[in-house]
Amino acid sequence: MINRATVYRVLEKSNHTDRAGRAVDIFLIILITVNVICVVLETVHWIYARFQLVFEIIDMLSVAAFTVEYVLRVWSSVEREPGQPALSQRLRYMVSPLALIDLLAIVPFYISYFVVFDLRFLRVMRLLRIFKLTRYSTAMTMLLDVFRQEASAFFAGFFILVVLLILAASGAYLVEQEAQPVKFGSIPDAMWWAVATLTTVGYGDVTPITPLGKLFGACVTIIGIGMAALPAGILASGLADQLRRKREALSQQYRRALEDGTIDAAEHAALEAFRKDLGLSRALADEILHSVQDGPHRSRARHCPHCGKALSRASD
Amino acid sequence: MINRATVYRVLEKSNHTDRAGRAVDIFLIILITVNVICVVLETVHWIYARFQLVFEIIDMLSVAAFTVEYVLRVWSSVEREPGQPALSQRLRYMVSPLALIDLLAIVPFYISYFVVFDLRFLRVMRLLRIFKLTRYSTAMTMLLDVFRQEASAFFAGFFILVVLLILAASGAYLVEQEAQPVKFGSIPDAMWWAVATLTTVGYGDVTPITPLGKLFGACVTIIGIGMAALPAGILASGLADQLRRKREALSQQYRRALEDGTIDAAEHAALEAFRKDLGLSRALADEILHSVQDGPHRSRARHCPHCGKALSRASD
Amino acid sequence: MINRATVYRVLEKSNHTDRAGRAVDIFLIILITVNVICVVLETVHWIYARFQLVFEIIDMLSVAAFTVEYVLRVWSSVEREPGQPALSQRLRYMVSPLALIDLLAIVPFYISYFVVFDLRFLRVMRLLRIFKLTRYSTAMTMLLDVFRQEASAFFAGFFILVVLLILAASGAYLVEQEAQPVKFGSIPDAMWWAVATLTTVGYGDVTPITPLGKLFGACVTIIGIGMAALPAGILASGLADQLRRKREALSQQYRRALEDGTIDAAEHAALEAFRKDLGLSRALADEILHSVQDGPHRSRARHCPHCGKALSRASD
Amino acid sequence: MINRATVYRVLEKSNHTDRAGRAVDIFLIILITVNVICVVLETVHWIYARFQLVFEIIDMLSVAAFTVEYVLRVWSSVEREPGQPALSQRLRYMVSPLALIDLLAIVPFYISYFVVFDLRFLRVMRLLRIFKLTRYSTAMTMLLDVFRQEASAFFAGFFILVVLLILAASGAYLVEQEAQPVKFGSIPDAMWWAVATLTTVGYGDVTPITPLGKLFGACVTIIGIGMAALPAGILASGLADQLRRKREALSQQYRRALEDGTIDAAEHAALEAFRKDLGLSRALADEILHSVQDGPHRSRARHCPHCGKALSRASD
Repeated sequence: MINRATVYRVLEKSNHTDRAGRAVDIFLIILITVNVICVVLETVHWIYARFQLVFEIIDMLSVAAFTVEYVLRVWSSVEREPGQPALSQRLRYMVSPLALIDLLAIVPFYISYFVVFDLRFLRVMRLLRIFKLTRYSTAMTMLLDVFRQEASAFFAGFFILVVLLILAASGAYLVEQEAQPVKFGSIPDAMWWAVATLTTVGYGDVTPITPLGKLFGACVTIIGIGMAALPAGILASGLADQLRRKREALSQQYRRALEDGTIDAAEHAALEAFRKDLGLSRALADEILHSVQDGPHRSRARHCPHCGKALSRASD
Repeated sequence: MINRATVYRVLEKSNHTDRAGRAVDIFLIILITVNVICVVLETVHWIYARFQLVFEIIDMLSVAAFTVEYVLRVWSSVEREPGQPALSQRLRYMVSPLALIDLLAIVPFYISYFVVFDLRFLRVMRLLRIFKLTRYSTAMTMLLDVFRQEASAFFAGFFILVVLLILAASGAYLVEQEAQPVKFGSIPDAMWWAVATLTTVGYGDVTPITPLGKLFGACVTIIGIGMAALPAGILASGLADQLRRKREALSQQYRRALEDGTIDAAEHAALEAFRKDLGLSRALADEILHSVQDGPHRSRARHCPHCGKALSRASD
Repeated sequence: MINRATVYRVLEKSNHTDRAGRAVDIFLIILITVNVICVVLETVHWIYARFQLVFEIIDMLSVAAFTVEYVLRVWSSVEREPGQPALSQRLRYMVSPLALIDLLAIVPFYISYFVVFDLRFLRVMRLLRIFKLTRYSTAMTMLLDVFRQEASAFFAGFFILVVLLILAASGAYLVEQEAQPVKFGSIPDAMWWAVATLTTVGYGDVTPITPLGKLFGACVTIIGIGMAALPAGILASGLADQLRRKREALSQQYRRALEDGTIDAAEHAALEAFRKDLGLSRALADEILHSVQDGPHRSRARHCPHCGKALSRASD
Repeated sequence: MINRATVYRVLEKSNHTDRAGRAVDIFLIILITVNVICVVLETVHWIYARFQLVFEIIDMLSVAAFTVEYVLRVWSSVEREPGQPALSQRLRYMVSPLALIDLLAIVPFYISYFVVFDLRFLRVMRLLRIFKLTRYSTAMTMLLDVFRQEASAFFAGFFILVVLLILAASGAYLVEQEAQPVKFGSIPDAMWWAVATLTTVGYGDVTPITPLGKLFGACVTIIGIGMAALPAGILASGLADQLRRKREALSQQYRRALEDGTIDAAEHAALEAFRKDLGLSRALADEILHSVQDGPHRSRARHCPHCGKALSRASD
């Protein structure tokens, strides 16, 4: 019989030493990836016509696997805090974002038996299974962290962008409406031009043609590109900042481990786990270790002349 | 009867604990947003035809509300420095940027009764009411701060961009004029191509067609993209810098509050108000608090071994 | 009679207190700007037809003024190092970049009397007078400094971009040549597409049409945008770095001036001159002064507990 | 007879003092560049028709030179660690990346005598010789270092970009398929639009035309540009970071050399070699030296008042 604690450990706590956990993780990652590729390829008519059966079998098996996964996760979620009542714990787990994503990955399949939907829409909905990868992706986690932390700056950037879009579209509407009554016939119509211009996509399907419109368009473009790039810049800078802090944290751990002069096996394992948790590459970790290790001339600057203890860490 | 001091407090000093002030703020933000949406939708013919009356009523009510708001603000502005003469204070308030924006939001409505204007232009002018949001937006305030601080670098970036635009347009005019006498017939004409190219919008309505023109265009593009992105880069870097300084300021406040080992209710309220003033998200504040709190190994490095006082703050 | 030392001081050493020097500077800046505007407007046929005489008079007077300026600068350049022989000093000045730009601004005018040139080319050449502004622009100076300092990184970025362009063009040539023998007929032809794509300009006049070409184009675009933005990123980061160092330098000067507790008139004038030399805005300087002044809690962290002297400056 | 140690030193260890080594390096760099230019020009029909013989001779000679270079490198690679067995060392060298690039540069030429290939493909393959420049380019080396160090962040950025591309293409496929069954007929087809849009290339050959499609396209563009720029931002920030660390390292070397108050000839040569190893420009090095040298007021802040030793280096 299946042990609930084992299921919980394999599914949720799979660290880098647990073999069964890693196998399940890899199996699920491959299954999700195969699903996404299938949904994309299914929309190509001749591929669908030729491999319809294959696609359907893969979908069946995937839904079955994801359903089992979901049920097991809900069932074993009691193990999170063993003392608590089972039902309330399971309900709390079921409304967590990751559990909702898991549910969203299977529920359209079952609904389609009861309700008649646009089949094409339903098939594409399966693409949402891609979000199941969030669980395994340091990238996604890091991005979500940056979003949460830089939320106010991000919102500020978007707010400024929206104001700019509205003003650009209104101006273009005023100066171009008579010359191009279809493309600049209203502010919402002109918005399509404003978005394409301020994001520097510039399709060219809508462009100002009057001299005044071109002058206005040129001014808006020159002023606007700086602000349209703001959310991007904030995100990139936030990500770089977070990486720097992670690097700094790892560097500190190395320094602490090196305080007795050497890194033993236990320390090495702990540092490796910490590095993987942070999602830093091994090459970077090696460089950090190197920069912490080498440096008698460094330590001289960073140690108090009285007690020999470090005075200030290098603002590395 | 209305108390002038109360009006002033509700309108101008609404912090996050004053209920009436918050209600007025939220009402005005919603009203401004509704106004902007109306102006945008009015330009769509069929929507305007069907809902003309609704739009006109909303406009009437908005102008009324904004007029009352403006009058009350001017009237109560005396409370800013209670001892001063009332008239001079009101005049000084009326020429402040925020008051001018408020005036600009209502004055076109009244002017239209005396002077005959292009109605379409007048209606779109109401979009300027969007700037009334400046009062409530940390984003706008922060951006204006960055503009003021990085003004010289920003001006430098724009100056270089303008020089580059003129040189690019002149070169393209010289090499392409004969092949495309309409699109590259003069330097101002060629400027439209230069703007679209150097900002990387690239509509494609004007492109060089001669081999020499393409060679010149390719060189200009490769050299130019770096410089066209300069103002954007300066703005983004300035904003990131300001955020970093704000984070540092909050971090310092946390550290001071934690000097006695704990954050009591009064300290917590003060820190929350400070955080909101800075416009930082709660998630970020929590992370900062966490990094300040955890860290016996950190404090060891940052305190003098003799007196226990901090020697150098972490360049976080 | 004109005093050579006075001429030298007015022309070359005009600081912000010398009235005559400032007047000459402003006159020359306006004259250069008028010249640039004239050259741009001359290329518009109807403007040239109507104002030909005005343009010619402005050009005459400008050349006269720039010639007098050039002669006076060469003549007075002896004052740079008063003890040295005059001729060698003048020759050394004449080959300096700024003097060559000054010469370039007037020499085409005189050449046109002896040699028959393409008139249109000659007229546009007058645009080079825009570089005379270099003398007055902190922006240009700062950009040149960044170029010199980040030269190796910049060259690296361009080298990588060129390699990428060649590989992208070659790949597109291989997969698209048969489908579009004109647009992708050779690697130089395909280069036009590669430049437009990797710089994200994307005119759309040349795009891959075969499935393989689109796949290759998509891959190249996704991989390439990161690298095409490298020179821009290096430039922006270099400029931000330089601004940071300038800010730090000003901050240090403020701190030194404040060591005796106050900034007297002489210190204030020196700090203002330093600020203008650095090209920093007054708003930024005020903020720096503020952050240096306020902060008893800061100074505690930055002063040695034994002697009271600063231990480590804030990495502001 | 040729001495193996000399060959090894000339080919592999050519520092900036060894004349023969530098001559060989410069000869090879010129040869590689000429090769790349030839391959590019060969694809232009009329150039190839006229200079076919020249191209063939250059190719012959180049292959000969590169073959000799490769054989000598493999032969002399034994000198790397003189004590080790020769064969295993040579094999180990032959599978190193640089040796594989060298092999790839010559092997297509020899293969073409045995196997019949598409001649055009084979000729373009010669462009891979451009990678032989990796050996001489600090730029390439630096970029590879940044890739290795920021690998996880880079992968994260690309993963997010791919997820975004799939979702954008699926959404566009759903809303535009009926209006444009050819251009948005399947998700892979729609992907071409998604790539062109999210990378802001925006060719304009495929654009949404339905109102719903434009709304979706606008939202995707605004949200997406931030994330499409992520890999670029990470790369640029990583490069800037590495440059900063290199600058810091050089600054530290200068400080150490200056500890005795002066930089003698030997120290100067060592610092120059170190600077070239780091790939920093001389202008930057001079500025660093300047900032280290000047500054009695700096050193006061960075030295302990008790023992006179540096307490904390400036986070320059």
